[in-house]
Amino acid sequence: MESGIAAPTRRQLLSAIARVGGTAALYGAMTSLGHAAETQFHGPPNLQGARPGASVIVLGAGLAGMLAAYELTKAGYKVRILEFQNRAGGRNWSLRGGDTYTELGGATQKVGFAAGNYLNPGPWRIPHHHRTLLHYCKAFGVALEPFIQFNHSGWVHSSEAFGGKPVRFNAAAADFEGNIAELLAKSINAKALDEAVTQEDRDKLLEALKGWGMLDKDYKYAAGLKASSHRGYERPPGGGVNGAPIPSKDLYALHDVLDPQVWTSMAFFMGHEMQTTMFQPVGGMDMIGKAFARQVADLITYGAKVSKIAQDDKGVTVTYADVATGKVADAKADWCVCTIPLGILGQLDVQVSDEMMAAIKAVPYSGQVKIGLEMKRRFWEEDDFIYGGHSFTDQEIGLISYPNNNFFKDGPAVLLGAFARDLGAYRLSGLTPEQRIEAALAQGSVIHPGSYRKEFVTGASVAWSRVPWTLGCCARWSDEVRAQHYQTLVGMDRRIVLAGEHASYVGCWMEGALLSSIDAITRLHKRALEA
Amino acid sequence: MESGIAAPTRRQLLSAIARVGGTAALYGAMTSLGHAAETQFHGPPNLQGARPGASVIVLGAGLAGMLAAYELTKAGYKVRILEFQNRAGGRNWSLRGGDTYTELGGATQKVGFAAGNYLNPGPWRIPHHHRTLLHYCKAFGVALEPFIQFNHSGWVHSSEAFGGKPVRFNAAAADFEGNIAELLAKSINAKALDEAVTQEDRDKLLEALKGWGMLDKDYKYAAGLKASSHRGYERPPGGGVNGAPIPSKDLYALHDVLDPQVWTSMAFFMGHEMQTTMFQPVGGMDMIGKAFARQVADLITYGAKVSKIAQDDKGVTVTYADVATGKVADAKADWCVCTIPLGILGQLDVQVSDEMMAAIKAVPYSGQVKIGLEMKRRFWEEDDFIYGGHSFTDQEIGLISYPNNNFFKDGPAVLLGAFARDLGAYRLSGLTPEQRIEAALAQGSVIHPGSYRKEFVTGASVAWSRVPWTLGCCARWSDEVRAQHYQTLVGMDRRIVLAGEHASYVGCWMEGALLSSIDAITRLHKRALEA
Repeated sequence: MESGIAAPTRRQLLSAIARVGGTAALYGAMTSLGHAAETQFHGPPNLQGARPGASVIVLGAGLAGMLAAYELTKAGYKVRILEFQNRAGGRNWSLRGGDTYTELGGATQKVGFAAGNYLNPGPWRIPHHHRTLLHYCKAFGVALEPFIQFNHSGWVHSSEAFGGKPVRFNAAAADFEGNIAELLAKSINAKALDEAVTQEDRDKLLEALKGWGMLDKDYKYAAGLKASSHRGYERPPGGGVNGAPIPSKDLYALHDVLDPQVWTSMAFFMGHEMQTTMFQPVGGMDMIGKAFARQVADLITYGAKVSKIAQDDKGVTVTYADVATGKVADAKADWCVCTIPLGILGQLDVQVSDEMMAAIKAVPYSGQVKIGLEMKRRFWEEDDFIYGGHSFTDQEIGLISYPNNNFFKDGPAVLLGAFARDLGAYRLSGLTPEQRIEAALAQGSVIHPGSYRKEFVTGASVAWSRVPWTLGCCARWSDEVRAQHYQTLVGMDRRIVLAGEHASYVGCWMEGALLSSIDAITRLHKRALEA
Repeated sequence: MESGIAAPTRRQLLSAIARVGGTAALYGAMTSLGHAAETQFHGPPNLQGARPGASVIVLGAGLAGMLAAYELTKAGYKVRILEFQNRAGGRNWSLRGGDTYTELGGATQKVGFAAGNYLNPGPWRIPHHHRTLLHYCKAFGVALEPFIQFNHSGWVHSSEAFGGKPVRFNAAAADFEGNIAELLAKSINAKALDEAVTQEDRDKLLEALKGWGMLDKDYKYAAGLKASSHRGYERPPGGGVNGAPIPSKDLYALHDVLDPQVWTSMAFFMGHEMQTTMFQPVGGMDMIGKAFARQVADLITYGAKVSKIAQDDKGVTVTYADVATGKVADAKADWCVCTIPLGILGQLDVQVSDEMMAAIKAVPYSGQVKIGLEMKRRFWEEDDFIYGGHSFTDQEIGLISYPNNNFFKDGPAVLLGAFARDLGAYRLSGLTPEQRIEAALAQGSVIHPGSYRKEFVTGASVAWSRVPWTLGCCARWSDEVRAQHYQTLVGMDRRIVLAGEHASYVGCWMEGALLSSIDAITRLHKRALEA
């Protein structure tokens, strides 16, 4: 530092701007510094000066609830958490060998995975711009490792294209881009775009199409070494006497390349939440829930089944039963942060406005199904050269996702054999756990015909619509429901405020739960000081 | 296994086919099993039965030389390696704090990086399909971790576009795809492609363009939430009251989006060698060289400067001087595997055919420059949310690449501040090491204006044209030179065979060196048994 005085870092500067001028000033400053906003997180909430003796009861020890308890305790509140399960973390959850899980309907699975292997039934990946989650992972000592989101070698399978056989993502994507480029170049050269694009830009565009789309000198996308350098080779470059590459003889037919499975797979990776770099906790997703729980361990009452939430001018009274003994008790506090999933909450006796109860009941939940399959060996790595990432299919399982830990290791590994949504999830949810495994094996065998059944050891599944403590995976807001109910749902209802991914625009992500929680407790604190 | 008899794995099957029917049969089998070939590696060479007492001298303890020595020793040969440096690994090399490096011209750098930090001046990433290297990494116990090749958040900088300011890859790529999609949709709707594409495929294509290119219902790529879901937001989705996202107000202008920096960056990631998933050794690239060296430690004579390679009907005689003492000695063997880089080899007294010497002298080497910059903190992670991957620029430095280890850690970290090629490399090579650092800081500051100079601690550079033991980075075959000289170069010249990345079609990659080595020793062994 030449002057001897440290200039503020950009982060310090933005933090100072936010403190002085609020959020609007911050956006202005970020824009003028040349950066688009990547997150609504600008540091942990700086809550201070709770009234002496002020108390908050938090319902649910998921991430939103635990974060609220952690930050409110720091602000000086007396906090207590009631949690239905005997475990903290909520949907932040990992299933390991020896675990037992009973779903709605009574089917019980005893998980048989080998030591060190796991399935993350809920969240399983963390985008780099989920700054709130990343902040607390670092603060609470959660080690993260890369989650290989994007893998050019994954398979793309459509039952409607390529003769129903899986094709490599790189080959399908290269042929899509090559065809797009050739057709657009043809249009330009036929003067179809002379009015829309200047001569200079048409020249630049032709050059771009040739380079991006691997077109030849005649603006054709043709089989040969150029196309193969993107889509793959019949025989790739090697060493010595037979080192010369042999290009792939054929390209896929345009009709197949235009199958929705191809472009949806390509567009998937460009989605805001799906872009690289992504992370996962070392050792399983529940390392995060456990780290949060360590911060608030003394505040949690486990096995507490809430039946009623009442409030008056003085405070909130929550009636709950001890799950083990059935004994009913009341918990009282000045304020309440409720993170109970809406499908559960809507069935309780909750003393809120009619508008709030209408909002709670208006939001449907999605019912994803995840299936973990333990395989004797990593055949996807050894035989198919796939290290992490996904293969996509239009079958019910939706995709196969490959483990991102212990690459190259011998011994059994767990892959995600299904991440089913919508109709596929609905159908898989209707099956028994055993039938789900069989469906996953049958459908996965289409992608990995030689190995899938042969290498299979054991499996486990979670159909979220059958999870007793959520009755669904996550809130599924439509634009219409959002317009009608969202601001009511996130608003304070006298002494009660809701928090969780359902109270955010980052639905189904841990980040949404945390951002919602910070917003909720910030408003609660303000209200408490005004009261 | 229902039958009680284990069916062969696909790998075992292919291996068996290769043994019985040779390479051509293998390709046929792979194709019929539905897989394009990903590699020319089909397992380590199975060399057996060397004649008693048969000997090989290997010149160079880089990866090609050490692999040759390892496999030939296993086959029964008496092997000796002569190495010019006092270290094995060759271009597989890492510079760490405390290391000293003197380049041609005499400039000496004492590397000042903090403990644990390093620069890989040569190879730095491993594609998933470089099976030979991955095989030996596993066999020799080299731990690998993901190398984050593809990062949507990296910066793209062109001095000719976007007002000379860096833009995010995701925004530039989204706008490129959006514009391409809109223009092609316009052409289709104007009936410019009615003859080229069937009605059914035109409908599929329009649907694909809408979905892949984020077009609105009128087939326009317009600012709004849809475009922002790929290119990024003015304010991204959040939680609570202000959770609603605000889309980016503007899109980049077509003229800027068509800048070559944009599409070359996009096409880069589709290149065969550049596709994900990639890896790097834990702890620095030289972990590989060190692991190979452990296998052949007893065979290596260090500090041996070869001056002459002679051969006759009986064997090969290599004359070398001990670098420390100047003492000259001869080493004799039946055969010789020479991995000395061609720029050096061409200056020695080598008894090979005129055609071979012409081939050796015909291949120019590239002169890449790499610069490592240690920064006080990971501002690219903390401020820019960039975890690994690259930012591209049309300045001399070519790119900035961010470290793929120790994500989220506090304390100093080394980024790659330049990977310069062609003219940029030529110019940076002409500077002193101090001037190179200054150039890297000046150019890098365009990408990271606030932080680059402020956080800089120390740097180190390697200009490969000035590396005394290679005189260049790697062989740069043109098609013409390849057609005229390649088969001569890789052919056996009586008792001498060359190996290394220069004797491959996978130039500049470790995989090329290993594949070349396997091919060379396989032929040498065959010749030795016939002799």
